[in-house]
Amino acid sequence: MMKKFRVKVEIRLKDGILDAEGRTIERAIKRFGIEAENTRKGKIIEFTTVGDNKEEVVEKIKRLANELLINPLTEQYILEVKGEEA
Amino acid sequence: MMKKFRVKVEIRLKDGILDAEGRTIERAIKRFGIEAENTRKGKIIEFTTVGDNKEEVVEKIKRLANELLINPLTEQYILEVKGEEA
Repeated sequence: MMKKFRVKVEIRLKDGILDAEGRTIERAIKRFGIEAENTRKGKIIEFTTVGDNKEEVVEKIKRLANELLINPLTEQYILEVKGEEA
Repeated sequence: MMKKFRVKVEIRLKDGILDAEGRTIERAIKRFGIEAENTRKGKIIEFTTVGDNKEEVVEKIKRLANELLINPLTEQYILEVKGEEA
């Protein structure tokens, strides 16, 4: 029987990649009067999907992340998959 | 003595607000062959700051979030503050 899972993909630029948007945000935080360094801007994509079990869902979402959601040259991701109550 | 803290702000649209970007992503996930519903796109802003203690940092970042980082009419946020090793 198919179960529902809530998927969360956190997408960040790789460590060596210049984060231009992060720098702009950092300047704004400093202008606000708060100390900030190493500021990074990332993305969250969340959705509900179905699958037989968590392992199968993780495998297909890894493929989705690498082929559709991220740019593997510049970005990396962290994946969280949780079963939803029926 | 001032300590360093790593701040993570997760920003999402409020539940009732239409997430146009989320819908576009959802269509792409489905075209990829994976079931998706209730797809939401959010943002992560992370930076290192300084403060006397965690409580003081949380208070000032709450102010920063509401006045600078989010649009309180349409967005909500989750805040995570962790002490960094010296």
